[in-house]
Amino acid sequence: MPTPGNTVLTRALRLLDAFTPDRPALTLSEIARLTGMPVSTVHRLLAGLVAWGALERGDDGRYRVGLRLWEVGALAPRGQGLRERALPYLEDLSQITRENVQLAVREGTELVFVERIAGTGAVPVLSRVGSRFALTATGVGLVLLAHAPPEVQEEVLRAPVERFTPQTVVDPARLRRMLADVRSSGFAVSDRQVTMDALSVAAPVHDGRGAVVAAVSLVVRHGSAPAHALAPLLRTSARAISRALAQPTRR
Amino acid sequence: MPTPGNTVLTRALRLLDAFTPDRPALTLSEIARLTGMPVSTVHRLLAGLVAWGALERGDDGRYRVGLRLWEVGALAPRGQGLRERALPYLEDLSQITRENVQLAVREGTELVFVERIAGTGAVPVLSRVGSRFALTATGVGLVLLAHAPPEVQEEVLRAPVERFTPQTVVDPARLRRMLADVRSSGFAVSDRQVTMDALSVAAPVHDGRGAVVAAVSLVVRHGSAPAHALAPLLRTSARAISRALAQPTRR
Repeated sequence: MPTPGNTVLTRALRLLDAFTPDRPALTLSEIARLTGMPVSTVHRLLAGLVAWGALERGDDGRYRVGLRLWEVGALAPRGQGLRERALPYLEDLSQITRENVQLAVREGTELVFVERIAGTGAVPVLSRVGSRFALTATGVGLVLLAHAPPEVQEEVLRAPVERFTPQTVVDPARLRRMLADVRSSGFAVSDRQVTMDALSVAAPVHDGRGAVVAAVSLVVRHGSAPAHALAPLLRTSARAISRALAQPTRR
Repeated sequence: MPTPGNTVLTRALRLLDAFTPDRPALTLSEIARLTGMPVSTVHRLLAGLVAWGALERGDDGRYRVGLRLWEVGALAPRGQGLRERALPYLEDLSQITRENVQLAVREGTELVFVERIAGTGAVPVLSRVGSRFALTATGVGLVLLAHAPPEVQEEVLRAPVERFTPQTVVDPARLRRMLADVRSSGFAVSDRQVTMDALSVAAPVHDGRGAVVAAVSLVVRHGSAPAHALAPLLRTSARAISRALAQPTRR
């Protein structure tokens, strides 16, 4: 039961949802249209968000996400904190393989890419830092789903599974067997399930208490290397990141 | 004149201010104490922030900045956008000099460090990504202040100038002359004005329309290199970043 106050807060936060990687700068009327709220309401809420620095208004009259929100967002342990601790190991993986390296975490029934290092001349990938993706198709997604709470797995497998290629596994029973394999083998393989030219291999990253908090993957051109040859590399790298996470922070 | 709605929003955003790099995880009562708000109010506002994902509540009962806020914050053009575009040039500067490299933007009457690459064996520096600092002491600060609107310069120079070392320039008239020098020479020097063992040299980064939007600096051990030898390096690097910013984004 929302109180009137929380309705205001909820509405203000919904304005922030209008901003995406594809729409980083928006006018007042665009925000009103995207959120379905009256222009007068949006105008009043925007003033509050701008006053604090969550949004900034440019000379062109467009609103953009403000530096203050970036500052506070950089305090998120599962975003910037994880990224900074994992980065040296991801760079090692990138330099050794020259392939695409990805780090992702689960957010509800989707994954969010926390870091992505593009390999020089490597196969093109769809991911972008801060962007979301289905848990069912990618290597990192399968790792995160395999270690998600049972109720999250059920929610994902009950919903229609998005198909990206003819190779995408959409059958819930087959996905369940794949997830069990991921848990027993310690790695996940996505073979042309996102794009027909790519194969990804992913392994779980644990926190200091043993919970799976992230997944790291390599995305290579299909046919360039067998998945079983990449798996030990990913598992080694994921364990190194897990060890770094288990160490006490300097903060 | 705040409406009741905006008061709720303003209060909720003030809760976010309680989180800092030194205090990334807080309990309900700590947040109430830090913000001076009643526990019942804080509790209600936290529920709204957690529901959207601005904050997350851990198993330990502490609140932390949430992944969703990091996602939205990553859309800030002056934060993550600037950082990603400048990073290759900052890494070049770091690899060539092995010294500390910094990138900062102005936020009101302070600066915010957007990137910092520590040099191996270089002199220790106080900066941290996302942390704030006075505009009057560092090389990047002097560049940003020299190119700030006149009213911002007046506000900074009217206020008491913070002293960090015996070398810190705190006299407004002398600071004014330094700022004029920065504008005419195209670079700024901070000679032991922050710590007695460090010298920094900084140059302005321009956007596609010629406005100064950031400053890049090297921080070296005092006595290791003369400022005039570093200035051309900084100016060259700052121009390369400016060119990158002037190019259309791929988004």
